[in-house]
Amino acid sequence: MGSLSLQQKYARLATDDAPGQEIRQGTGSILPLLRGDRLAGTPVDFSHGDVDAFTPTPGAFEAFSQAVEIGGRRAYTEYRGDQELRAMVAQRLAGFTGAAVCGEHGLIITPGTQGALFLAVAATVKAGDKVAIVQPDYFANRKIVQFLEGEIAPVRLHYLDHEERAGIDLGQLEDAFKAGARVFLFSNPNNPAGVIYEPAEIQAIAKLATQYGVTVIADQLYCRLLYDGHTYTHLCAMDMDPERLVTVIGPSKTESLSGYRLGVAFGSRLVIDRMEKLQAIVSLRAAGYNQSVLQTWFAEPDGWMRERIAAHQSIRDDLLRRLRTVDGLRARTPQAGSYLFPQLPPLAVGTGEFVRILRHHADVVVTPGSEFGPHVTDSVRLNFSQDHAAAVQAIERVIDLIRRYRA
Amino acid sequence: MGSLSLQQKYARLATDDAPGQEIRQGTGSILPLLRGDRLAGTPVDFSHGDVDAFTPTPGAFEAFSQAVEIGGRRAYTEYRGDQELRAMVAQRLAGFTGAAVCGEHGLIITPGTQGALFLAVAATVKAGDKVAIVQPDYFANRKIVQFLEGEIAPVRLHYLDHEERAGIDLGQLEDAFKAGARVFLFSNPNNPAGVIYEPAEIQAIAKLATQYGVTVIADQLYCRLLYDGHTYTHLCAMDMDPERLVTVIGPSKTESLSGYRLGVAFGSRLVIDRMEKLQAIVSLRAAGYNQSVLQTWFAEPDGWMRERIAAHQSIRDDLLRRLRTVDGLRARTPQAGSYLFPQLPPLAVGTGEFVRILRHHADVVVTPGSEFGPHVTDSVRLNFSQDHAAAVQAIERVIDLIRRYRA
Repeated sequence: MGSLSLQQKYARLATDDAPGQEIRQGTGSILPLLRGDRLAGTPVDFSHGDVDAFTPTPGAFEAFSQAVEIGGRRAYTEYRGDQELRAMVAQRLAGFTGAAVCGEHGLIITPGTQGALFLAVAATVKAGDKVAIVQPDYFANRKIVQFLEGEIAPVRLHYLDHEERAGIDLGQLEDAFKAGARVFLFSNPNNPAGVIYEPAEIQAIAKLATQYGVTVIADQLYCRLLYDGHTYTHLCAMDMDPERLVTVIGPSKTESLSGYRLGVAFGSRLVIDRMEKLQAIVSLRAAGYNQSVLQTWFAEPDGWMRERIAAHQSIRDDLLRRLRTVDGLRARTPQAGSYLFPQLPPLAVGTGEFVRILRHHADVVVTPGSEFGPHVTDSVRLNFSQDHAAAVQAIERVIDLIRRYRA
Repeated sequence: MGSLSLQQKYARLATDDAPGQEIRQGTGSILPLLRGDRLAGTPVDFSHGDVDAFTPTPGAFEAFSQAVEIGGRRAYTEYRGDQELRAMVAQRLAGFTGAAVCGEHGLIITPGTQGALFLAVAATVKAGDKVAIVQPDYFANRKIVQFLEGEIAPVRLHYLDHEERAGIDLGQLEDAFKAGARVFLFSNPNNPAGVIYEPAEIQAIAKLATQYGVTVIADQLYCRLLYDGHTYTHLCAMDMDPERLVTVIGPSKTESLSGYRLGVAFGSRLVIDRMEKLQAIVSLRAAGYNQSVLQTWFAEPDGWMRERIAAHQSIRDDLLRRLRTVDGLRARTPQAGSYLFPQLPPLAVGTGEFVRILRHHADVVVTPGSEFGPHVTDSVRLNFSQDHAAAVQAIERVIDLIRRYRA
């Protein structure tokens, strides 16, 4: 407990392969591995969504401008965020999830959902604590727990083996709780696999958490981007002690408001209180004026969200159809969110090398599976919230290179 | 090390008296203490600067708007901030401080200077480490170290006993280093006392840090708001190993850009690298579009900064002249920044009670000295970056109440 040197601690936080950091990587070592001509085409950065292709919610900039006009009252708010905005957001989230949400005591506005995630974990985990973490899942989950010197109890998600359920290994989850894990952290829809937990899985999580006195942190960042034929089950609307749950959500994905860096966490008052105290020393508050952009959230123009989801579904289907022509490649159809997480066929180079070859030889950026878990090093994650035509052409280049490097 | 319960840990992070949090306080307990009629007047919140009285740098909103136009390239940047903006800011900071500043490897953009401070301390301090902390100093310094379960080695600042030097007890600083402190964290100008460290003090700090291998984190947030007749000595321009120093600065104070939540840290490459890794899990990056507002920084219109400083100096002098009519009140004239930190005469109520009485009975918000150190519980901090006339009237109300409650 607390026994790692800073050097060890920060070595585990390596961001060299993290999405968005590719610009800091060199090229040197892959040059001898290059095969064939460079593949020309519009560069596509699948490491994150393209907010130029899918632009921010209408009215977002206007809401920001009004905040600048309002001035001081929006620049300086309570650390947990502006009181009126919290009340408004709480009401909308209650309507959306079916859970009771208290804007005064049970909700905090944070700089991005990343901020909410960090605060929620730091408010519930100390050095030496066991934390149940899904594999694969969002890479920061693991890194936050490691930074806090918590101990990870892994829980497998067999997403490739199912069509309807997410595929969480509930036996392993219970084993983790039995072994002493008192916090469970997971994303739903799962990042990177794009699968959603079916009602029976969510009910089982609620039941096990209750039985073992576990606090659950549910990252629901992508839960609004839900494809045809699927329904979403909110853990916060289940029969579970509300003080044992924190839900993290934000407008940075489906709504493309990531440039405004806004996130929200709601649920347990005790945890939200702690999160505010920690936010006071970590970043003080969510960007002052930016908070006002939340006015547009869950208040999008009629049909706008439906259209946005349909456009994503169409890209998803076009990319999947092409990827599935590759022998040995496995990809489950995402039920929600904008990630594809194909398992690549055996290649003559490592996945890390292949990712760099893709970037330098085909202008395509993807994120290696190793960021998300130890069992998925043969997979890559693509955020397909991109220009449709450019994404299709980029996938053709990916497929071309898979063929060149097939083992 | 790592042995505190979360309950203990968060109890030490209490924000009940922190600036901006007053809205969450109740009134109940002070009602029986009220003396005389309520004092009417324009409410003044001295807990932070008023960005409606002193508005953001001209061009800030336009720079933000351009960023929204640019779109994705500004929404998603490296975690340490946009490469071009970093290069630009580095050049300007080098010109301002006289130190070498490397935008590529030695600078990070953060969500507010609070973000920079947290990351810098977390990158250099682990559980059990001794950290030298000035008393009084910015309240978050202590809280960040406590959150990381570091141990505080206090160093007194005898600001009331001097006119020119800040008044740091250099003997105590060396004792702290001798006792094993390997990190020294201080604000210059000092928050809350508004004093600046004279050249001999800064040279002594550089020398002692070099001699004992100490890493210094210098919070220079207010160093541009410098009053007539004073010069500022940048530690980063001294003869000291640049890998042993991180300087924190930002445009949220003199420039009133706090609603954009921007901060910068520069110096040691090793520490900046770690700060980026930690930022990746704490908040990902400074608010995307907001970063562009840095274009206006150190590029203000001719005369604008001079005028702003003169306006603050005039408020400072008007408030001090009035405060000094109060028998037994001691106040040093701030050399920089926008804080007054008067020591109150003995009162019939505690300072915490008096602060709440001020708020409820006179619509004046100040911050109790106990936030800044254990020896200054008889003082209160006022940020006088306010509407001039309203601030003067508010000080009259403060003085009236001091007289009512004199012991």
